[in-house]
Amino acid sequence: MTDENASTSVPMRLSAWGVVGIGEIRPDDQLGEIIADACRQEPNGPLCDNDVLVVTQKVVSKAEGRMVAIDADDPLSHKALVEDEAVRVVRRRGDLIITETKHGFVCANSGIDLSNVERGWAALLPIDSDRSARRIRDIVKARLGVSVGVIISDTFGRPWRKGLTDVAIGVAGVAAVVDLRGTPDALGRMMQVTEVCAADEIASAAELVMGKSSGIPVAVVRGVDPSWFRESSMSEIVRPPQEDLFR
Amino acid sequence: MTDENASTSVPMRLSAWGVVGIGEIRPDDQLGEIIADACRQEPNGPLCDNDVLVVTQKVVSKAEGRMVAIDADDPLSHKALVEDEAVRVVRRRGDLIITETKHGFVCANSGIDLSNVERGWAALLPIDSDRSARRIRDIVKARLGVSVGVIISDTFGRPWRKGLTDVAIGVAGVAAVVDLRGTPDALGRMMQVTEVCAADEIASAAELVMGKSSGIPVAVVRGVDPSWFRESSMSEIVRPPQEDLFR
Repeated sequence: MTDENASTSVPMRLSAWGVVGIGEIRPDDQLGEIIADACRQEPNGPLCDNDVLVVTQKVVSKAEGRMVAIDADDPLSHKALVEDEAVRVVRRRGDLIITETKHGFVCANSGIDLSNVERGWAALLPIDSDRSARRIRDIVKARLGVSVGVIISDTFGRPWRKGLTDVAIGVAGVAAVVDLRGTPDALGRMMQVTEVCAADEIASAAELVMGKSSGIPVAVVRGVDPSWFRESSMSEIVRPPQEDLFR
Repeated sequence: MTDENASTSVPMRLSAWGVVGIGEIRPDDQLGEIIADACRQEPNGPLCDNDVLVVTQKVVSKAEGRMVAIDADDPLSHKALVEDEAVRVVRRRGDLIITETKHGFVCANSGIDLSNVERGWAALLPIDSDRSARRIRDIVKARLGVSVGVIISDTFGRPWRKGLTDVAIGVAGVAAVVDLRGTPDALGRMMQVTEVCAADEIASAAELVMGKSSGIPVAVVRGVDPSWFRESSMSEIVRPPQEDLFR
């Protein structure tokens, strides 16, 4: 059913926009329903099959009750949570702790940060962001009748390069990693560089229309290669420690 | 002249497409002129001020004569080049060499790969991709009268996560890293996570419309926050070794 030639045909046009009208999310809010309802009223028009919804981790964590009270007057009060959420401390320098989380993500502070949450609270990562993504996908399908991909995104730093970028921490219905091995390049050679992390690239594209301060927690990305829509999980992205040179 | 509120106002709409009609690039080709001419005939319409042109490293290296003959029958014949182009080997396992290049990039094989180049040749990274980007920007301004940002992109791996993503290796006219420190978040708190690598996110968005096998080496990204257009350089992104925990 997939179009193997999709990535070699005339280039597609990608578009992305933030979904407006999603208010502050609270514990036990039905996030999928709220997103579906907001998309129904979107000035950019209705969702289509093969759109990708990118949903920021913060609202998923809020809806799933992953908020923990901290001492608002102690800037280090969430550091104990960081160690609770980690399976391993990868690096530590001063206040900066790079950990490996239970999910296998390597990031600062086990993914816990205090931006865009109420003072005195910290948001932990969702327990299983793939499940969170599948739930949103299924509710959108049920309420709007369209088959979309869903990516839960978070903002991570990386070694060697300054500045943060948005990456996927959960996926449903759209490839996490696209394997092009065996595909000829434009000169007919078999390609060497062949596994593209589509989900991280889509999360980055979505960040450009959400911003960090806008309070827009969901974006639509349209025009993704139709052959990439399939079952997926973060296990495509998380590199096992034994294959990793930096742990 | 910049709009400080651009990132907090109604969300923008981003769009991206591959530029068709750019043929095979050869040494001493005037890449900027070729790109400007192709953009003039683009079915998606003319370039506008504040568009970003994302140009893949491979065509820049070809135009700038950074092609080196190798032994096509020896799969390891480019490994000597890898060490020539490196200032430091960061990790090595089997055939995989992660190096720090003269530019300060940390990547596999000093950024040398053999995809999308003629058999028997390897493409080295441009000597100064910021300069390459500025040159394209200036030629586009001269020929088409529009002020665009230019990003030279390449495909890098990263620790901990599988799959490659496109990142910036050269920038001109558009911010590499956007510093949001001091900006209030949606709840009025000062943001902690504040430096966004806009150039890498734009490079990733562009990759989604270029693909790895399509032979489309240039994309237009439209709808980037207007306040991000300014002088810039890769020094915003390259993290100095003394600040880095993974070198």
